[in-house]
Amino acid sequence: MISAAVMTGPGEPLALRTFPPPELEPGAILLTTLGSEVCGTDVHLWRGQLAGVPYPIVPGHVSVGRIAAFGPGEVPRDVSGVPLHVGQVVTFLDVHGTCGRCWYCTVGHATTRCPSRRVYGVTMSADDGLLGGWAEQIHLKPGVHVVPLPDSLDWRAFLAGGCGMPTALHAATLAEIAFGDTVVVQGAGPVGLCAAVLAQLRGAGSVIVVGGPVVRLAAATAFGADAVIDIASTTPEERLAMIRDATGGRGADVTIEATGVPSAVPEGMRLTRDAGRYVVVGQYTDVGSATINPHLDLNQKHLDVRGCWGSDAGHVHRAVRVVDRYARQFPWTDLISAEYALADAQTALEDVAAQRVVKALIVP
Amino acid sequence: MISAAVMTGPGEPLALRTFPPPELEPGAILLTTLGSEVCGTDVHLWRGQLAGVPYPIVPGHVSVGRIAAFGPGEVPRDVSGVPLHVGQVVTFLDVHGTCGRCWYCTVGHATTRCPSRRVYGVTMSADDGLLGGWAEQIHLKPGVHVVPLPDSLDWRAFLAGGCGMPTALHAATLAEIAFGDTVVVQGAGPVGLCAAVLAQLRGAGSVIVVGGPVVRLAAATAFGADAVIDIASTTPEERLAMIRDATGGRGADVTIEATGVPSAVPEGMRLTRDAGRYVVVGQYTDVGSATINPHLDLNQKHLDVRGCWGSDAGHVHRAVRVVDRYARQFPWTDLISAEYALADAQTALEDVAAQRVVKALIVP
Amino acid sequence: MISAAVMTGPGEPLALRTFPPPELEPGAILLTTLGSEVCGTDVHLWRGQLAGVPYPIVPGHVSVGRIAAFGPGEVPRDVSGVPLHVGQVVTFLDVHGTCGRCWYCTVGHATTRCPSRRVYGVTMSADDGLLGGWAEQIHLKPGVHVVPLPDSLDWRAFLAGGCGMPTALHAATLAEIAFGDTVVVQGAGPVGLCAAVLAQLRGAGSVIVVGGPVVRLAAATAFGADAVIDIASTTPEERLAMIRDATGGRGADVTIEATGVPSAVPEGMRLTRDAGRYVVVGQYTDVGSATINPHLDLNQKHLDVRGCWGSDAGHVHRAVRVVDRYARQFPWTDLISAEYALADAQTALEDVAAQRVVKALIVP
Amino acid sequence: MISAAVMTGPGEPLALRTFPPPELEPGAILLTTLGSEVCGTDVHLWRGQLAGVPYPIVPGHVSVGRIAAFGPGEVPRDVSGVPLHVGQVVTFLDVHGTCGRCWYCTVGHATTRCPSRRVYGVTMSADDGLLGGWAEQIHLKPGVHVVPLPDSLDWRAFLAGGCGMPTALHAATLAEIAFGDTVVVQGAGPVGLCAAVLAQLRGAGSVIVVGGPVVRLAAATAFGADAVIDIASTTPEERLAMIRDATGGRGADVTIEATGVPSAVPEGMRLTRDAGRYVVVGQYTDVGSATINPHLDLNQKHLDVRGCWGSDAGHVHRAVRVVDRYARQFPWTDLISAEYALADAQTALEDVAAQRVVKALIVP
Repeated sequence: MISAAVMTGPGEPLALRTFPPPELEPGAILLTTLGSEVCGTDVHLWRGQLAGVPYPIVPGHVSVGRIAAFGPGEVPRDVSGVPLHVGQVVTFLDVHGTCGRCWYCTVGHATTRCPSRRVYGVTMSADDGLLGGWAEQIHLKPGVHVVPLPDSLDWRAFLAGGCGMPTALHAATLAEIAFGDTVVVQGAGPVGLCAAVLAQLRGAGSVIVVGGPVVRLAAATAFGADAVIDIASTTPEERLAMIRDATGGRGADVTIEATGVPSAVPEGMRLTRDAGRYVVVGQYTDVGSATINPHLDLNQKHLDVRGCWGSDAGHVHRAVRVVDRYARQFPWTDLISAEYALADAQTALEDVAAQRVVKALIVP
Repeated sequence: MISAAVMTGPGEPLALRTFPPPELEPGAILLTTLGSEVCGTDVHLWRGQLAGVPYPIVPGHVSVGRIAAFGPGEVPRDVSGVPLHVGQVVTFLDVHGTCGRCWYCTVGHATTRCPSRRVYGVTMSADDGLLGGWAEQIHLKPGVHVVPLPDSLDWRAFLAGGCGMPTALHAATLAEIAFGDTVVVQGAGPVGLCAAVLAQLRGAGSVIVVGGPVVRLAAATAFGADAVIDIASTTPEERLAMIRDATGGRGADVTIEATGVPSAVPEGMRLTRDAGRYVVVGQYTDVGSATINPHLDLNQKHLDVRGCWGSDAGHVHRAVRVVDRYARQFPWTDLISAEYALADAQTALEDVAAQRVVKALIVP
Repeated sequence: MISAAVMTGPGEPLALRTFPPPELEPGAILLTTLGSEVCGTDVHLWRGQLAGVPYPIVPGHVSVGRIAAFGPGEVPRDVSGVPLHVGQVVTFLDVHGTCGRCWYCTVGHATTRCPSRRVYGVTMSADDGLLGGWAEQIHLKPGVHVVPLPDSLDWRAFLAGGCGMPTALHAATLAEIAFGDTVVVQGAGPVGLCAAVLAQLRGAGSVIVVGGPVVRLAAATAFGADAVIDIASTTPEERLAMIRDATGGRGADVTIEATGVPSAVPEGMRLTRDAGRYVVVGQYTDVGSATINPHLDLNQKHLDVRGCWGSDAGHVHRAVRVVDRYARQFPWTDLISAEYALADAQTALEDVAAQRVVKALIVP
Repeated sequence: MISAAVMTGPGEPLALRTFPPPELEPGAILLTTLGSEVCGTDVHLWRGQLAGVPYPIVPGHVSVGRIAAFGPGEVPRDVSGVPLHVGQVVTFLDVHGTCGRCWYCTVGHATTRCPSRRVYGVTMSADDGLLGGWAEQIHLKPGVHVVPLPDSLDWRAFLAGGCGMPTALHAATLAEIAFGDTVVVQGAGPVGLCAAVLAQLRGAGSVIVVGGPVVRLAAATAFGADAVIDIASTTPEERLAMIRDATGGRGADVTIEATGVPSAVPEGMRLTRDAGRYVVVGQYTDVGSATINPHLDLNQKHLDVRGCWGSDAGHVHRAVRVVDRYARQFPWTDLISAEYALADAQTALEDVAAQRVVKALIVP
């Protein structure tokens, strides 16, 4: 039997359950879990802040495992079209079931908005099997996009960014950072920290992280941020003044929002210079509204604002390559504050909710 | 002596004044005015809704004239580098004095945000001369960007769009309309009507104009809009339902805002499909704020929002070419509801303010 | 039994054969053919100029038909995700089998380079069934991308452009034509003519078609080209001089190549202005090399050159919308020079090869 | 009197001459030279391979100096609009006189193709003054774009890249490198080495330098290249095989050409994957033609090829910021193989011509 931590419903304590070994369909893959991340989405799930979640679920949407077995028939291939093999260490795109047939898939080329997509560890029920990473094994359905980790890459280094890395990579791509740009990142959680690193890997001239708490700002500094601003000890007006001072009075060339707080959005627009670019990637749940001034914040400002939702297989593939290539420069595993056994998943969740850790892993 | 209509201050009646013939510096050009438009900005000026206006001013920022004389020295050139000649019919970029030296000009490549720019008919004082189009003659300072009208182009056809045409051309360029897209235009004033035409000149699959009053919606239909929605007789919910019905439930691929009303901005975001694009070009004055939901309207929606400010010489050059080339298809001069003598400028202003006309011209 | 024209091998006369009614798999669709185009690719196929063709084939890659039947199970959906119904008039993306699993599909977002793709009427064998349009019925395999024609659209209008329309639409998209640009199109076959029309639907300031023979140039003029240049009566030097004369000495802002002749490529680079854009879409078979000067033609010229291969479902969807929307403006069916019964397919092929027709249709 | 090295004509030995102190116009700046680079262009100048050079000239187009004096009147400003001051260490855009009035400046937004532009050290005559960097002082004409070096930046670090840095920065910007891309750089001179560094500052997954000689390839490795391929010991077929082996058989995602050899262009097209991007920035002089296959190399390959000419003030500004920000990571000054006094400029030129050095500086 296979153990997994199960979230039975909002607010209920996590339960450790056992599952029978999954029956593998043709094209399916069984992973023996090496690790799975705990992220803000898991906290949202536990608090019941996401719609359409089929509780009970096995949480854990970004995970790394070793291939234990394949379903019958042809051996599945990775996202480069190369056949996989048993024993290989891989990660996978948590989004499964993008249909390839709807308007968003065929015409819109906006597959992260395909309505058929389901997400491991989020919108797939534990009643249907081991479909989340907080488990000894994970059942990859036929068609899941698998990305091998190269031998040179410590799997913990990849999970240190967790879902934050492909999410931030998507955002940093949309941000179109130019060489020498001043980049402000709002938020110092995993997405924000990854964005702050990726801005340096776009040749930013300066990276300023606005967030908290202090432990996360210290991580930002350790990972190369040129300056950090603690939101706990500053007012919005002070932050605006600090960013303007650092940019010849103009504001950031590019700002990336990764906070989850609605009021951060108008603030971020104002931290950005005229004709700059603002990417909103931190508003993953609906926690209310914000007030903007369309004349000052958009039209006269000639501002470009881009919402950024989800990731695709390409983002994960590229995230793996970037984490591997720049591991000499960025000590990724330092982002991991703590590792937890399956039986301690509840503690992990609470530590993340309290922002006591930067990144927490479940290591079954 | 040269007559001009002068706006002496907010709320004051326009006055007809006379000016001595201007002394032309080297590089300057004297135009004999053929026509000058009356636009929403003139109404804003009269209501005192724009900051930094050096009343008294000669209004009229987009104008057409015939070259009467040059200043001493080398003959000025048009924006294609071709020497101008007396008798030529030309228009010019109303923005003068873009510095070419500041960060926005040299590094940012965002010249419409150069702080040195001044605007004929808006931010240049009548105390300094004939620096607006509601006058028998216009004094083009050295360096003003001049765009000749080709012989095939009726000058009234160019002024029928007025400043709305380069403004809308800039917005429609930022909108990155794809072939077959459904384009919604919010607002049926000159900018909106020009945007609705330009969307057709980007190969839109359908163009829907949301606005009013009826006279302007009729113009939209006459200029090829596939559908119009009257804001006076519909609720926002009804409008959303109508756009969704017309787009397979998704919303517009591209929406262009040209209303001047803050609440149009959140509405426009919602009229646009996930992963679509929204251009805000109608919020030229500060008339208040609007409330958005960052999760629903930006992040999950994966929406691209672009503020659009001002025009450059390229936009005017391209506007002239487009109006000329597609004059067989679009009867531009039908947009001109009325022409007014200089002495009747006050009436023109009031007719525009009351939206009794689509486009009004001053013809000295 | 169902009749089809079969190309048994390069250089061999087409044969009329009969096929049994196809057995429809789940997800398959049977079309009763309304029409299918004859295009330059069919001539290449007949001459044996394409590699990897599994003769015998039923030619005809872009076709329109009426849905006659579905395979068992769930009703297939169109590219907008809407269920299809019997009796509906549809076209389909000729490319079938794009894998969705290889690097080009998942990471590269370059599906037209997926190595698994096969093409109806080109790389699918008649031994496997009715997999081309020169037949009374067409067997659409599960997963073929289907695009309905709206009721307002005459199916002949869509086939008048044929495969040239989505091909040109892809090219014109890559061309990033700006409002008012001078666009030169090299080639006056269906791709070139469609490109010349689409340039007008991007707001080009002037469209110049360089090609031949006279019958095709006449069609270009009828479809709105501002000027045509006959390659039979001009030298490359004369053509360069003519384009320069028309563009203030600079050259075309954008040039689209649609000729199939290698020497057209260096000529097209030189017809384009410095910092312009050149799209190469006409070199669909390997008929030799061309000589360029990297300093003059690329580096100093600051030229952007884009090769353009294939189309995807989005291009077909958008082509249908554009042909429908602008049918009042462009009399598409005038491009159809002749229609041929299945038994006359050989004549159709020879007429196209001899450029005696603009567009030829097979109407079973 | 002020000493300068003067190139009197092609093939003639450099001469050391003295000049009177320049008379400074309003807006002019006098720099005391700290250093000036010797680059491939200087070798081309000496060999007479560039057209339109007004010998005698003072070579040295990219230089750093300390502000010694200003012309009368208002103090000039830097490219951020900040007033300069005496004693400040600055560099400047070598291109002077971009007109701001021609079609390329006003409409085309392609200022590096402005026909009025002249280049310090290249197209400005020594008869007109100290208009090149191989001199004790440099006369910056009014309007020259000045970029201060921050105090944290060693001026030698900036000159270590020399003109190669803004040139490569422009090329790497056009290259649109995505996170994780495999980037091949053809050429290991200063432009190629800078491109190899900048690719890492775009988050490339792998950077491979193809070039020579060994001393330069060693520099590439020291500056982080993942692999180098020596053109002296490999055939084009071997290089293609090596790149394919490193990229799953596909080829480079992005290739940047920086060689000056025409045959490198078709080779580079073939080293690049289908639907990849190829930037040609090394063909700065006309040394002949190259043969391509338009079908295989462009159309079927769906390749994007971009010629890249010149730099603007923004590129220099951004280059300064990048060199400063990433000096901890890249030991720029290691690229400087040798420094030469003015009297030894002839030796410097010959050392560069023989590729005996990576970067050579003139330090007056």
